[in-house]
Amino acid sequence: MLNKIALLGAGSWGTSLSMVLEENGHEVRLWSHSQEQVDEINQFHTNKHYLPEVVLSKNIKAFTDLTEVLDSVDAVLFVVPTKAIREVAKKVEATLKKSVIIIHASKGLEQETHKRISVVLEEEISADKRKAVVVLSGPSHAEEVAVKDLTTITAASPNLESATFVQQLFMNDYFRVYTNKDIIGVELGAALKNIIALGAGALHGLGYGDNAKAALMTRGLAEISRLGVAFGANPLTFIGLSGVGDLIVTCTSVHSRNWQAGNFLGKGMTVKETLAHMDMVAEGITTTKAVYELAKERGIEMPITAAIYDVLYNHANVKEAVDSLMKRVGKSES
Amino acid sequence: MLNKIALLGAGSWGTSLSMVLEENGHEVRLWSHSQEQVDEINQFHTNKHYLPEVVLSKNIKAFTDLTEVLDSVDAVLFVVPTKAIREVAKKVEATLKKSVIIIHASKGLEQETHKRISVVLEEEISADKRKAVVVLSGPSHAEEVAVKDLTTITAASPNLESATFVQQLFMNDYFRVYTNKDIIGVELGAALKNIIALGAGALHGLGYGDNAKAALMTRGLAEISRLGVAFGANPLTFIGLSGVGDLIVTCTSVHSRNWQAGNFLGKGMTVKETLAHMDMVAEGITTTKAVYELAKERGIEMPITAAIYDVLYNHANVKEAVDSLMKRVGKSES
Repeated sequence: MLNKIALLGAGSWGTSLSMVLEENGHEVRLWSHSQEQVDEINQFHTNKHYLPEVVLSKNIKAFTDLTEVLDSVDAVLFVVPTKAIREVAKKVEATLKKSVIIIHASKGLEQETHKRISVVLEEEISADKRKAVVVLSGPSHAEEVAVKDLTTITAASPNLESATFVQQLFMNDYFRVYTNKDIIGVELGAALKNIIALGAGALHGLGYGDNAKAALMTRGLAEISRLGVAFGANPLTFIGLSGVGDLIVTCTSVHSRNWQAGNFLGKGMTVKETLAHMDMVAEGITTTKAVYELAKERGIEMPITAAIYDVLYNHANVKEAVDSLMKRVGKSES
Repeated sequence: MLNKIALLGAGSWGTSLSMVLEENGHEVRLWSHSQEQVDEINQFHTNKHYLPEVVLSKNIKAFTDLTEVLDSVDAVLFVVPTKAIREVAKKVEATLKKSVIIIHASKGLEQETHKRISVVLEEEISADKRKAVVVLSGPSHAEEVAVKDLTTITAASPNLESATFVQQLFMNDYFRVYTNKDIIGVELGAALKNIIALGAGALHGLGYGDNAKAALMTRGLAEISRLGVAFGANPLTFIGLSGVGDLIVTCTSVHSRNWQAGNFLGKGMTVKETLAHMDMVAEGITTTKAVYELAKERGIEMPITAAIYDVLYNHANVKEAVDSLMKRVGKSES
């Protein structure tokens, strides 16, 4: 079953996913708004800013023109930053000619509305142009997927047939895909783990050790589950690949951008300096704001999110905020 | 409430715990069978083999004579290797003059009988000499506790009053103790996580990346919970500090001896060579055997434990065993 896929977003994760799809024999059309990046991919088969070591197959073609990318595709995969999802979805809606499977592999919540990405996609892409929305998420550093390290990941949708279609698109020897019907839990796990990773990085930057990091991650998992269950997620999702699995990889791996941002903050950089040091998006920074507001609206206790929010948006001193958080983490286990 | 505590076992964990107790104002008597180690502690206030960087308080006194150590104590804390628990418990039974709180901070299951350590202690120490048995366990590298890094840990016993006594003994600013009634879950989580750490180390030694490690840890948590629940543990214990918390610290930290042993195996050392390279006990090696046999008896599926068992006890090739395990890890998520 070979398919034609439009892949929107040529960052490190989008590029790695394009390599998996191409390797599985599918036709991949990569969309980027940067003419320079499109030229680099088409002429040199590299994407050095995002995946410096990698050479892409010549079969992977890039475009800046969305009409060309979307022409007679079977599925559209969104891997753009969360803040660009709605705008790109509007363009897709205006360009798509037929009904396709909509997939996304972005990790965050929309600012202001606090909506999950699949909800934004359903709002912007009309029902007659989407067979289903499927989210692809799990413990998966792009850099490792690009070199074919073994990776396990979840394809989630209440429409199990479409989740299975996505599973079959991506599945191969080193990229193992499992289906899950709990799209709410999978999207929330993916978004919220970045907040905990900011915290884990800040602990490291402040000189805390592995014992403290494990405590933060354990309480972080509880905090993520608490919000998820309040919004209708299946609690078991949070002890699966897209819950604790993704949390572990994001909080403990050298590749994690959110951990790096937290580490810069812990070492005493201001938020502005930290952002200036990041050459890729650390989604956790905006997700923290969305989740903080969401938890406040609903009256859900999220002490880790609140502490990170105070550092990022209220000029709280990172050492004081984290010390006080860790004292609180030490107050009860339930 | 200051107490007199006999602490049996002067390895790295026992020594670190003695420092916490001493700092909290309790009288600590440390027992070791090594005259040389006892002399080093009493004369130089160091224990260089186990905690090279650390200077102990002069208040911590060590003894080889169990009668002296147990004289009029309020509690006895066992921190000896699992294989020595029954033998030492017999000696304690023969020496103890009154009823005390029995605490243990060892991590394993008895070979042959497959019993949890608290069960062994209850068998060997008669009811009139023990008020209760409490287990102390959680994400806690000894090396970090010794330098007062923030650590969170669980004191578990069905007897909550005794668990609270142990909580109060240890609790201070950097050592945060929570009580839990689920001694079965806490002991099984502590023992079984070492098997997963052997696997995580082997993955690293074989060149697998962080994505694969997160997948293994996620499935490992499921495997631990499966066995735990079959033996009457509360499933929530496994997503708490002594479950996922301890799993994270043991599988991702440079301090973990079980991870190190797995890493040696993954790099191609034989089991014999690996043991020769370890200067401290890697409890996971014997725990793997006990848990493998236990799971077989009860018909519980434990693919990670079975793969590690084959490497350790059946001369299986580590690369073949782990590759085949990881293919299987990729078969379903439920």
